[in-house]
Amino acid sequence: MRHFTRIQDVGPEGVETILAQAAAWKSQKPGAIFQSRILGMVFFNPSLRTRTSFEAVMLRSGGHAIVLDVGNGVWKLEDRPGAVMNADRAEHIKEAAPVLSRLVDMLGVRTFSAGGGDEEDELDPVINAFRRHVTVPLVSMESAREHPCQGLADVLTLRETFGTTKKLPVTLTWAPHIKPLPKAVPNSFLLSAAAAGCEVRVAHPPGFELHPQVRAEAEAYAKATGGSVTYTHDQDEALAGSRAVYAKSWGPATRAGHAPGDVAALMASYAGWMPTRKAMSRAAKDAIFLHCLPVRRNVEVSDEVLDHPSSRVIDEAENRFHVQRSLLHWLQST
Amino acid sequence: MRHFTRIQDVGPEGVETILAQAAAWKSQKPGAIFQSRILGMVFFNPSLRTRTSFEAVMLRSGGHAIVLDVGNGVWKLEDRPGAVMNADRAEHIKEAAPVLSRLVDMLGVRTFSAGGGDEEDELDPVINAFRRHVTVPLVSMESAREHPCQGLADVLTLRETFGTTKKLPVTLTWAPHIKPLPKAVPNSFLLSAAAAGCEVRVAHPPGFELHPQVRAEAEAYAKATGGSVTYTHDQDEALAGSRAVYAKSWGPATRAGHAPGDVAALMASYAGWMPTRKAMSRAAKDAIFLHCLPVRRNVEVSDEVLDHPSSRVIDEAENRFHVQRSLLHWLQST
Amino acid sequence: MRHFTRIQDVGPEGVETILAQAAAWKSQKPGAIFQSRILGMVFFNPSLRTRTSFEAVMLRSGGHAIVLDVGNGVWKLEDRPGAVMNADRAEHIKEAAPVLSRLVDMLGVRTFSAGGGDEEDELDPVINAFRRHVTVPLVSMESAREHPCQGLADVLTLRETFGTTKKLPVTLTWAPHIKPLPKAVPNSFLLSAAAAGCEVRVAHPPGFELHPQVRAEAEAYAKATGGSVTYTHDQDEALAGSRAVYAKSWGPATRAGHAPGDVAALMASYAGWMPTRKAMSRAAKDAIFLHCLPVRRNVEVSDEVLDHPSSRVIDEAENRFHVQRSLLHWLQST
Repeated sequence: MRHFTRIQDVGPEGVETILAQAAAWKSQKPGAIFQSRILGMVFFNPSLRTRTSFEAVMLRSGGHAIVLDVGNGVWKLEDRPGAVMNADRAEHIKEAAPVLSRLVDMLGVRTFSAGGGDEEDELDPVINAFRRHVTVPLVSMESAREHPCQGLADVLTLRETFGTTKKLPVTLTWAPHIKPLPKAVPNSFLLSAAAAGCEVRVAHPPGFELHPQVRAEAEAYAKATGGSVTYTHDQDEALAGSRAVYAKSWGPATRAGHAPGDVAALMASYAGWMPTRKAMSRAAKDAIFLHCLPVRRNVEVSDEVLDHPSSRVIDEAENRFHVQRSLLHWLQST
Repeated sequence: MRHFTRIQDVGPEGVETILAQAAAWKSQKPGAIFQSRILGMVFFNPSLRTRTSFEAVMLRSGGHAIVLDVGNGVWKLEDRPGAVMNADRAEHIKEAAPVLSRLVDMLGVRTFSAGGGDEEDELDPVINAFRRHVTVPLVSMESAREHPCQGLADVLTLRETFGTTKKLPVTLTWAPHIKPLPKAVPNSFLLSAAAAGCEVRVAHPPGFELHPQVRAEAEAYAKATGGSVTYTHDQDEALAGSRAVYAKSWGPATRAGHAPGDVAALMASYAGWMPTRKAMSRAAKDAIFLHCLPVRRNVEVSDEVLDHPSSRVIDEAENRFHVQRSLLHWLQST
Repeated sequence: MRHFTRIQDVGPEGVETILAQAAAWKSQKPGAIFQSRILGMVFFNPSLRTRTSFEAVMLRSGGHAIVLDVGNGVWKLEDRPGAVMNADRAEHIKEAAPVLSRLVDMLGVRTFSAGGGDEEDELDPVINAFRRHVTVPLVSMESAREHPCQGLADVLTLRETFGTTKKLPVTLTWAPHIKPLPKAVPNSFLLSAAAAGCEVRVAHPPGFELHPQVRAEAEAYAKATGGSVTYTHDQDEALAGSRAVYAKSWGPATRAGHAPGDVAALMASYAGWMPTRKAMSRAAKDAIFLHCLPVRRNVEVSDEVLDHPSSRVIDEAENRFHVQRSLLHWLQST
């Protein structure tokens, strides 16, 4: 049985397979490939694109989705083995995962970082509790460590624009925000772009390093695919000549050990990192702009960048549908 | 591409077309007219009838609905152009509307008045933000200015009962409530009934005037269809000889400039406007009673009126299904 | 028109019919028995299994479900006849039930005890308000008095394990919890097991008696089916030789007249009632463990019992699907 909760589940070869199928089906729709299939979708956190695109994939392919919001019409779920459940979590994933597995054909789970720090996110406790206890294929709709469907959609958008991603110079740049955000999206763009052979440049202020294990994994993919990964604290340097600029905010590295008040001040001190057209002008003339959405306009990215013809954020969101259709098909194949 | 967010989108002729189709399909079901189509439904506010009737329309015609509750499992949405998004709204309609348009075939939006006053409601900022940014047909499931599907269902109910609505004397009467409600429903009954050629009588206490532009629009429809619109502060006078009594509460006209505390006192001072059987007895012998629902029993309308055989509120609610099936079909035709 | 909100609606004969069909369809799937049918599901309370299993039943049989969460995207509902609706409940079941009946083919309602005491639960005011006002078949998804679909699933699990339930010794044992829970589940196991001819032993601490009318009803079923029902305050005594152990917590009998603080202390004083493997060892060698779920691990039941091969709680949950498919088919037959 297959699961997909991280890029490592498929590796660079699997990324190729899934994206090739996604591209083929984008131009020529498949038939009812999920006829009578049910995807159960368990949300611990909000969603617009993920929820709608997964449900649309199922409905447009003869199947159905059942959407469950944890803590909102559905019991709160416990993930810790051995817990004495005397607080607000009424059900354990040890029961919820196998029970749902009896009722649906595939299960999707969204569970953001609980804010316990990079080490805990690396362990990804909630999605891994599901992984241990499901008896049907499991797909991540974003967890603490990764948002792998987003990464696949990002790379499909690059491919559509530039034909190939081999040695394509792309920049992942940190952007400001009102609060420290999880690192799943930057991790996934980094891993997916490296697995697709890009020349990935990561730009962020000091203290916002991504987790060493994620960086090591990206390095290994780059080595295997002829790509590369470099890091800098200089946004301008990274943007120079980039064919794609991917903006995303994330919180400081836990190990930096900031107090909460300091984090707000630290994030605020880098407000100048918000991408503008002036910053974009350092990139290649045909450079495109990407963001996973939702985006806080004029905080994380300026209106002028999002409303410029070089922005591909809507196409990128649509590509969630296409990669997920391909991915779910791969998941249910043995 | 067609949209339907106000009666003006179809005018009196369109009202006829949509109602004729609705009536025809009520007696003879159409086939799978929405085969494989998806209606995306975005709710900023609660709903029972609207949500269930739209979803039932899609399911009973071979299609599907995807339901999204803004701020409840879905990111809160910003509508203001140029906003610096540093508060609780994580996504802009500028992104949400085109993204959803890539995933569904039609989009419905419910967004009540934000309470900013009649002038702001006349501009209808949220539904109009969607209207600017969608790339698929948009249907209003009630916005600040109008609830046009309700208006259509109301007129269909009149037609079924009386055969024709030409010069039919009908009263829209203000009713009490525990708080000031939006004017979308009274606006829509007024506009729809005028567009259907009724002799519309509007009764409300002083200070509860509907917006001048809505009244002007209704006047224009009445002129075109041989109907009429009159206003009075005397409920008894309006009811005399009416064939239909439509009760609905709404808040005072903004221009009246009441302080919040005064509004509560003002509303309370008109508790005597609650329709009773005694009031209904002034209407025609065959008069029917209408209300859009939900209704607060014994506050807005008395039990004796709602439980009397002359009440048609359940048929009226069912007609939401019939007019919406016809309307969505019209929307997806070019 | 048929409804199913309590075991009494079908009696021991109906239980046999529904379970036989459930078992037959479990080994050989029926076709699209709910083709184009819509089940409306109204939830006043959270759910995981109930919501997913009912929706899966409809989707896997050619039909659909529309899910409504009361007070969460849907207006709060009033059930009291004659109420002056000036508080937070915006709509009366007198309207909601007939309106929904016009839009769907069957209606399911979940409404837990409001905490008003055993006498009020016996009257089951909310589900009975729906029952009075629907015009389509109504099914309980758990109400104040009973959770009859759970009871059917429990008995199906017993049958699958032991072949027959005639004179099968089974124990329903009270278990600890952090708060007093409703009695719908213990009532339903008691009633269903008695209707299936089991030798039912109920064990609970003093002061936790089930309602006299429920006990009388169970007694009548036992008499008719050759089963029996006995009560004890001694868990060990009940477990001795039992082939199934059903653990469930519930609150004290209202008539015991405890103050809220006393209830917490009372419940805490019986923490020793939590089933352990040691307790289970008093049962028959082939005894199975049952629980309706959700279960609070290490509060209500210990990990060692839930993780032991004798636990059938996941099969029991899956059986919700099977009995509900059979039941909805029975409901829509005339």
